[in-house]
Amino acid sequence: MTRILWINPVGTDEFDGPIRGYLIKHAAPGTEVDVVSFERGPHHLEYSVYEALVAADILRTVRRAEEQGYDAAVIGCFYDPFLYEARELSGMVVTAPAESSMALAMSLGTSFSIVVGRTKWVPQMRENVQRYGMSERLVSFESVDMGVLEFQREPRETEKRIVQAARRAVEKGAEVIILGCTIEFGFYRQVQEEVGVPVVDAVLAPFKHAEFLAEVRKRTGISHSRKGRFEPSPESEWLEWGIRV
Amino acid sequence: MTRILWINPVGTDEFDGPIRGYLIKHAAPGTEVDVVSFERGPHHLEYSVYEALVAADILRTVRRAEEQGYDAAVIGCFYDPFLYEARELSGMVVTAPAESSMALAMSLGTSFSIVVGRTKWVPQMRENVQRYGMSERLVSFESVDMGVLEFQREPRETEKRIVQAARRAVEKGAEVIILGCTIEFGFYRQVQEEVGVPVVDAVLAPFKHAEFLAEVRKRTGISHSRKGRFEPSPESEWLEWGIRV
Amino acid sequence: MTRILWINPVGTDEFDGPIRGYLIKHAAPGTEVDVVSFERGPHHLEYSVYEALVAADILRTVRRAEEQGYDAAVIGCFYDPFLYEARELSGMVVTAPAESSMALAMSLGTSFSIVVGRTKWVPQMRENVQRYGMSERLVSFESVDMGVLEFQREPRETEKRIVQAARRAVEKGAEVIILGCTIEFGFYRQVQEEVGVPVVDAVLAPFKHAEFLAEVRKRTGISHSRKGRFEPSPESEWLEWGIRV
Amino acid sequence: MTRILWINPVGTDEFDGPIRGYLIKHAAPGTEVDVVSFERGPHHLEYSVYEALVAADILRTVRRAEEQGYDAAVIGCFYDPFLYEARELSGMVVTAPAESSMALAMSLGTSFSIVVGRTKWVPQMRENVQRYGMSERLVSFESVDMGVLEFQREPRETEKRIVQAARRAVEKGAEVIILGCTIEFGFYRQVQEEVGVPVVDAVLAPFKHAEFLAEVRKRTGISHSRKGRFEPSPESEWLEWGIRV
Amino acid sequence: MTRILWINPVGTDEFDGPIRGYLIKHAAPGTEVDVVSFERGPHHLEYSVYEALVAADILRTVRRAEEQGYDAAVIGCFYDPFLYEARELSGMVVTAPAESSMALAMSLGTSFSIVVGRTKWVPQMRENVQRYGMSERLVSFESVDMGVLEFQREPRETEKRIVQAARRAVEKGAEVIILGCTIEFGFYRQVQEEVGVPVVDAVLAPFKHAEFLAEVRKRTGISHSRKGRFEPSPESEWLEWGIRV
Amino acid sequence: MTRILWINPVGTDEFDGPIRGYLIKHAAPGTEVDVVSFERGPHHLEYSVYEALVAADILRTVRRAEEQGYDAAVIGCFYDPFLYEARELSGMVVTAPAESSMALAMSLGTSFSIVVGRTKWVPQMRENVQRYGMSERLVSFESVDMGVLEFQREPRETEKRIVQAARRAVEKGAEVIILGCTIEFGFYRQVQEEVGVPVVDAVLAPFKHAEFLAEVRKRTGISHSRKGRFEPSPESEWLEWGIRV
Repeated sequence: MTRILWINPVGTDEFDGPIRGYLIKHAAPGTEVDVVSFERGPHHLEYSVYEALVAADILRTVRRAEEQGYDAAVIGCFYDPFLYEARELSGMVVTAPAESSMALAMSLGTSFSIVVGRTKWVPQMRENVQRYGMSERLVSFESVDMGVLEFQREPRETEKRIVQAARRAVEKGAEVIILGCTIEFGFYRQVQEEVGVPVVDAVLAPFKHAEFLAEVRKRTGISHSRKGRFEPSPESEWLEWGIRV
Repeated sequence: MTRILWINPVGTDEFDGPIRGYLIKHAAPGTEVDVVSFERGPHHLEYSVYEALVAADILRTVRRAEEQGYDAAVIGCFYDPFLYEARELSGMVVTAPAESSMALAMSLGTSFSIVVGRTKWVPQMRENVQRYGMSERLVSFESVDMGVLEFQREPRETEKRIVQAARRAVEKGAEVIILGCTIEFGFYRQVQEEVGVPVVDAVLAPFKHAEFLAEVRKRTGISHSRKGRFEPSPESEWLEWGIRV
Repeated sequence: MTRILWINPVGTDEFDGPIRGYLIKHAAPGTEVDVVSFERGPHHLEYSVYEALVAADILRTVRRAEEQGYDAAVIGCFYDPFLYEARELSGMVVTAPAESSMALAMSLGTSFSIVVGRTKWVPQMRENVQRYGMSERLVSFESVDMGVLEFQREPRETEKRIVQAARRAVEKGAEVIILGCTIEFGFYRQVQEEVGVPVVDAVLAPFKHAEFLAEVRKRTGISHSRKGRFEPSPESEWLEWGIRV
Repeated sequence: MTRILWINPVGTDEFDGPIRGYLIKHAAPGTEVDVVSFERGPHHLEYSVYEALVAADILRTVRRAEEQGYDAAVIGCFYDPFLYEARELSGMVVTAPAESSMALAMSLGTSFSIVVGRTKWVPQMRENVQRYGMSERLVSFESVDMGVLEFQREPRETEKRIVQAARRAVEKGAEVIILGCTIEFGFYRQVQEEVGVPVVDAVLAPFKHAEFLAEVRKRTGISHSRKGRFEPSPESEWLEWGIRV
Repeated sequence: MTRILWINPVGTDEFDGPIRGYLIKHAAPGTEVDVVSFERGPHHLEYSVYEALVAADILRTVRRAEEQGYDAAVIGCFYDPFLYEARELSGMVVTAPAESSMALAMSLGTSFSIVVGRTKWVPQMRENVQRYGMSERLVSFESVDMGVLEFQREPRETEKRIVQAARRAVEKGAEVIILGCTIEFGFYRQVQEEVGVPVVDAVLAPFKHAEFLAEVRKRTGISHSRKGRFEPSPESEWLEWGIRV
Repeated sequence: MTRILWINPVGTDEFDGPIRGYLIKHAAPGTEVDVVSFERGPHHLEYSVYEALVAADILRTVRRAEEQGYDAAVIGCFYDPFLYEARELSGMVVTAPAESSMALAMSLGTSFSIVVGRTKWVPQMRENVQRYGMSERLVSFESVDMGVLEFQREPRETEKRIVQAARRAVEKGAEVIILGCTIEFGFYRQVQEEVGVPVVDAVLAPFKHAEFLAEVRKRTGISHSRKGRFEPSPESEWLEWGIRV
C-alpha cells in the first residue's frame, strides 16, 4: 500500500473534498489518499507573498506526514512552493505540479505551452521552467484571464477559455498542453478531445508522479539525494536554537 | 495487467536472460515482461554507425510489439536510438534509458553525472542531454574505460571502477549518479551504498518509467502527442511506395 | 579534379536528372558530379521514420563512394540524415544541407529564417539548429504548407509562397533566408531579387561546401576528426559479427 | 537624508552591532542606518528550510520599515531570501547581497567567482546566478569549508582561506571575486590587496546599491515595477482572509 | 566632490548644452558635470562604421579626462562603443548607457523591452544584451521608426511613438522599458506615467551609475579589474611603437 | 581569377612576406594574393585598445581593396577586429580568422579548443565564440604563455608548447584544435601529426574561406546581407558631415 498526502497549501478547505474524490478516481490499486489544507491563510497563492506566508505551514505538514508514515506528499500549487525545502527537510517522496508536469511532458512531446489564469503568474512560472531545464521546450504561456477561485465556479466558461488558449498554443507549435494551476483540475479530458494533443492535468501529474517515485523507492531503494541541494540541516541546531516546524 | 517489451537492440541474446530476470525482480505487481534481441547485427552500439544499422530492426520490433498488444516497449540502449522515430511510428508507450534516467534524476537532485564506458560515448550523449534540456544540470561525464561487453564479464572490476568514477563526480558536485549504459545494470545498489548519493540504473529507470507512462495512460487517457515531432506518416504512402518495417 | 557524389536519399530517381544538371551549372572548374538515389524506399523523408528506413542505404552509398574514389559525398536532405554517422564511417568529405547552409549563413548575416514545407518539419529541424549552435541566430521557421513532392510540380505556386514566407521572415528581422528543403532548389535567385536579402539554396550550399572542404583537404591535409564523435568502429568487430553496409 | 534598514534575517543579534558600525563607516553623507535581527529563529540560513522559517519575519520587517518611513531595506543574506516577495509586498527600495554583488561585478570585470563557506551552498546560489542572468560570467564557486558562524570567530583563519580560494579563482580566470556570505564582511580589502583583483563585499554591495537605488528614485522617480513579477496583492484579500504580516 | 565627464561621441555639439542641463538637474549634491563632443565625425552612430570612425576620439577623450582628474566618464551612445576598451585603457570609472540601463533594470523588474529608433539597431544591441547576460530577460525590441537626429526635433511625435512602443512591450510582458538611445532623453517621465511601468532613461542611467561607481570606489576602494579583459597594455610598447591616443 | 587581399592590421610589415609566401603555397589555381600592413600603429593587437587604434586603417584598407577590384579581403587577426563593420562598409567578401576557423571546425568535429598565446586574450575571444554561436562546442582555451611576436622567433619552442597545449585539449575531449593567432601559422601540420586530430591554421582558414565565399558569389550571386547588421550607411551622410575612411 502507498499512502499519499495531498496538501492544498491554502487557508480554505473548499477544494479538499473535490480533489480527494478526483484523486481516488485516478489512483492505482493500493494507493490511499488524504487531502489537507490549512486552518488559516490566503485562499489562493497567486502572489508570491502569499506563498511566503504559508512556508512554515507547508513544511510543518510535510514533516507531520513523514512522522505519520505517509510514503509521499504532494504540494498542491503550480508554483511548486517550497518543494526543494521540503526535500531538504524530509526523506519522504515530495512532488509538486510544475516539476511533475514538465517531467511527464518531456516524454509526451518535444514542446509544450502552459495555460495560466493570469499574466501575473508568468514571470514566476518562467523561473521554474528555467530551473527545471525546460526553457527550450516552452512554446508559450497562454492566459485565460481568470483567477484561481473562479475556475471551478464557472466551469463552462473555464473550459471554453482553456480550449481557446490551448488552440492558440497548438497554432504556435505546442505539442503538449500543461494546465498551469491545480484548480484547473477536471478539464483536461474535454480539452484534449477538442484540441487533439495531450493535456496534462496539474493535479494528476504530481499525484501519479508521487505514486511512481514511491514505487521506485520501494522496489529499488532509490530516493532523493541527501547531499547538495537537499542536504538536511542538523537536528542539533534545531534543538540549540529552539526552532521547529 | 501491463505488458512491457524490453528490446536489446543488438545481434546477440547474451543479455536477454539476465535482463529479464532483473526486470521481473523489480516489476510492479501486474507487470509482465518479455525481452528480445535481434537475429543479427552488432553486439553493442558504441558507434553510431552500429545504431544506424539496427534502425529498421528497432522500428520493426516496436511495430510488432504494438500489434501484439504490448502496453509499452523499452529501447534498451543509453543512446536512446530511434526513440523519437518509434514514437512517430507507434501510439504505444516507448521509453529509453537516457530520457527516463534524466526525467527521474530531475526529482532526485538538482545535478547529476553520467558514468560512461568510454570517452567515445560522450559527444553523442551530450547531444541527448542537451536535447532533453538537462545541460545545466549535467556536472560531468566520468569514464570507466571499459567497453559494453566487459561490464558483466568482470563485475568486480566494473563495480570498483564505477565507484571510483561516481566518487569523482560527487567530488565535483553531482547530487545524483546515472549509470550511462544498460549493461551497467545490477551495480547501482552497491555503488549507492559506497558513495552516498542516489544512483540511477539505466535498465530500471526506463522500465519503471514505462510502467508509469502505461499507468498514466490507462488511468487518464494521456499519451504522447501525435502532432508535431511525433505526427505519424500516412499509411497511404507506405502502400504506394511499398515500404514496410 | 574533384569528384562529388550527390545522394538523393529516397526511393525515386525523379530528381536525379534535374539536380545533376543544376549542380553541373554551378560547379567550379574541375568538379565532376554524379547523382544517385535508391532502388526502393520512401519518395521523401518528411517523417523521421522514413529516414530511419534509409539509414543503411545512406551509409552503404557513402562507403561505396569512398571505395570508388569520390572526394566527397552530399546527403541530399535538409534533415541531414546520418551525417555524423557517415563521418564516423568514412574518412571522405561528407556534407549535408542544414549544416552547410548554416555554416554559410554565418558569414552572410547575423540571423536567418528557414522556409519549410510543413510545420511537421519544424521540431526536428530545430534540434539540428541547436545541435549546430545556431539557436540564437534563428529568427523563425516559415511554412509554405506544401509537401516535398509538390515543390517542383507547381513551381509558380511554390515560388509565390516562398516569396511570401521570406517576406514574413524579413519583417521579423531575418537577414538571411535558408530554403529548408533540397527540392526547393532553383528558386533562390528569384526570391532573392524579390525580398532583397541573400537566399541560401539547400542544394547549392552543401555542394559548394563539399567542393570547399575537398579543396581544403587537398591543399592542407585537414579533414574531419577521427577522435570522439567521428571515431571509426574497428573493422575487426564488423568481421566478427558479420555485419556490413 | 536616506534611511536604510539592514535586516539580519536570523534569530541572533550577534552581528547587529558590528554590521551597524561597518555600514556607518562606509555610508555616504546623509545616509542613516539601522540594523535589526529577529527575536527567535535559526542563527544562520545555510539550509533553505531555515530560510523558509524566517519568511514571515522578513516580510513583516520590510513592511514595518516602509511604514516607519525607511527609504530602503536590505535583506542581509547571500541567498537573497524573499527579495522578490519583498518587492511584491512593498514599494520601498529593497536589495539583497547576491543581486547587488552581481550587478556591481558586471561593471568591474567580465567574469567572477563566488567564495562560499560550504559546498552545500552552491546549488542554491547557482540558481540565483542563473536567475540574474550571470551564468555565462560565473567562473567557479570556491569553498573555504567554514560555516557562517565561524567566519568572524576565527578571522585570521578565515582571511587565509579566502585568500587561497580567491587565488584559485583568479587562476581559473576570474576577474572579480565576490564574497558569498554577508558574514564574510570586513575581509575584502586585505584579500583584494593579496590577489590583485577587485573583491566585492557582500555587506557593502547591497548597502551601497540601496543608497544608489534610493538616490535614483528620489532624483528621477524611477522605482521597481508594480506589474508582472512585483505586482502587489490586493489589500481586500488580506482583509477578507484575515491575513497579515 | 565627484567630477563626471559626459562624452557625446559625435561630431556635433548640438546636444551638449541640453544634456548638460539635464544632467545637472538630476545630479546628486557634490557632482560636477562637463559635456564634450568631437570636432568632426558623424553626427550620430546608427551605423557601426561610424562607431569605428570615432574609436580613437573616444579613447583619447577618456584618457584626457583621467589626466584632468575626472572621477568618471560616460560614453554617451547606447551601443556602448569601446566601453571595454576604455576600461582597459583607464583606471577611472567609465560607464555607458546599455550596460548601466540593464544593470539598473535588473533590480526594477524581471524583464524589459528596449525602444529603439530603427530596426537596423537591433542586431548590434542584441549582441550587447547577450554580452551582459540579459538575453533571458529581454522581451522585445520595439522600433519607433525614427532616426537619432529626429527625436528632439519632433518631441511630440517622438513621445507619442515611444508611448505606443512601450505599450506594445508591456502587452508582451515587459515589466520595465529601456529607452535605447541617449537622444531619447527627457521623455521617460511622461512615458512612465502613461504606461504604468518604470522607464529607464539612457542618459540618466549611465550618469547615476557613474556617480554610484565613483562613490563605491571612493568609500571602499573597489574599482574595475586590471586583470583579464581590462588588463592594460604596457606603456613601453606605446613608446616603442610611437603610438598614442 | 580571384583576387584576395590579406590585411595584417598592424604597424609592421615583418609578417607580410612570410604570409604572402604561405598563402601562395596554399592557394587554389586562379587565386591571386596580396598582403598589406599599415604604415604605423601597434605591432600586435593583443590589447583591445590597440585594435581600436587601427579601426580606421582597417576600414580604409577594405574600402580601397574594393575600389581596386579585389574579390575578397581578410582581416588577419584572430580577434576578428571590425569584421562586421567591414561588411557594413563593403559589398565585397570579407573574412577573418575566428569566424572562418569556427565555421570550418563545425564540419571537422563536434567540439574544439583554441590555443592562445596569453590568458589575457581569453575573455575577448570567448565573446566571439559566443557571438558565433559556438559556446556549446568550445572545450577550452589553452595558453602557451607566449606573445604574438615570439611565435615565429622561437619556432621550436612555439611548436613544442602548441603540441603540449593541444594534448591537454584533446585530453579534455576536444576533437579539433584551432590555433588562435594568425602568427601561429605554419605549425598546424606538425601539431596535427603529433596529436592526431585536425588542427586549424588561423591563416589558412580565413584565406580558403575567402576563396570559397568568392566562388559562391561568382557562381550563384549569393553574398552577404545588406539588411540589418550589415545595412550600409547612406553616402549622403558621409558627404554632409565630411567624413571618409
